[in-house]
Amino acid sequence: MKLLKERILKDGKVIGEDILKVDSFLNHQVDVKLLNEMGKEFAMRFKDTKVDKILTIEASGIGIACIVAQYFDVPVVFAKKHKGLNMDNSVYETEVFSFTKNTTYNVRVAKDFITPNEKILIIDDFLANGKAIEGLMDIINQGKAETVGIGIVIEKAFQNARVDIENTGVRLESLAIIEGFKDGKVYLK
Amino acid sequence: MKLLKERILKDGKVIGEDILKVDSFLNHQVDVKLLNEMGKEFAMRFKDTKVDKILTIEASGIGIACIVAQYFDVPVVFAKKHKGLNMDNSVYETEVFSFTKNTTYNVRVAKDFITPNEKILIIDDFLANGKAIEGLMDIINQGKAETVGIGIVIEKAFQNARVDIENTGVRLESLAIIEGFKDGKVYLK
Repeated sequence: MKLLKERILKDGKVIGEDILKVDSFLNHQVDVKLLNEMGKEFAMRFKDTKVDKILTIEASGIGIACIVAQYFDVPVVFAKKHKGLNMDNSVYETEVFSFTKNTTYNVRVAKDFITPNEKILIIDDFLANGKAIEGLMDIINQGKAETVGIGIVIEKAFQNARVDIENTGVRLESLAIIEGFKDGKVYLK
Repeated sequence: MKLLKERILKDGKVIGEDILKVDSFLNHQVDVKLLNEMGKEFAMRFKDTKVDKILTIEASGIGIACIVAQYFDVPVVFAKKHKGLNMDNSVYETEVFSFTKNTTYNVRVAKDFITPNEKILIIDDFLANGKAIEGLMDIINQGKAETVGIGIVIEKAFQNARVDIENTGVRLESLAIIEGFKDGKVYLK
């Protein structure tokens, strides 16, 4: 997606060897107009896919998923990383390793919000090591629903998550694919 | 807002003495169509207010803020509760007590995303004890920007946060106001 790639090259900041900071338009400050363009793009790429619901993970996936959901006319569910006092125990739960935060944490979705046979599109901001997506797919499996596709804003191709996902037979669409970083510069596919 | 009030009465669940669970449409599963109606309502209520940016707090404020922002044609910034590896130290930071989670935590916004004199509308899902809103206003003050309004989806009037906010001279608009809970029922204003 040209508009996104240009924005990454203009405003993305490379931190160290392998982190891309896109805080100015994607996951701290959010350019809602750009999100709308992404929504249109995902709708086009998944136009032949029946989607009943979008699943994402808090926090930075939520805004993207909600805007994208408008183009599919479906509700969003976001997996929670933190158990509030008002969340009971009827949840599907799985463990995820976070690349940017370098910790393992649990994510959960209330059983009420994953229905058997439901066709679920996963939307998230980054695909790095693939652990978050793997966790969401595990939750969808636990709920006997179906992952019909995965829509990613920025894929870090050099962390090789794509192969494992494609081996499951699920379609993966990324709006921008990063080949690597070198001397603080981003190399896009 | 009639549509929201009806939805709260239909799908809201009272937990204990003072918690309203609206997980099925607002802060776990998200009814994006309802969010759009809220966006229209906030745009109407703040139609005479100049807004440059919307500020919210992760996680459940993000989806609402992003949808609402479409009706103001402005970007969203969400205050972060967790410091990632890719967040440096140039942040405005403040302490917030969470009513539902019964803990104190820090929230932060990168200094880059609050500009002096910027007119900021705060959007959040709940107004309970008012501590989250107070924290966001503190961050806006630190950045020498201006809080031009506060838009809340559900206000718990019995926790009395409104008086302190109105004393600051900032306009507060809540789409649904809860007078109290009794025998597991919600009493709306």
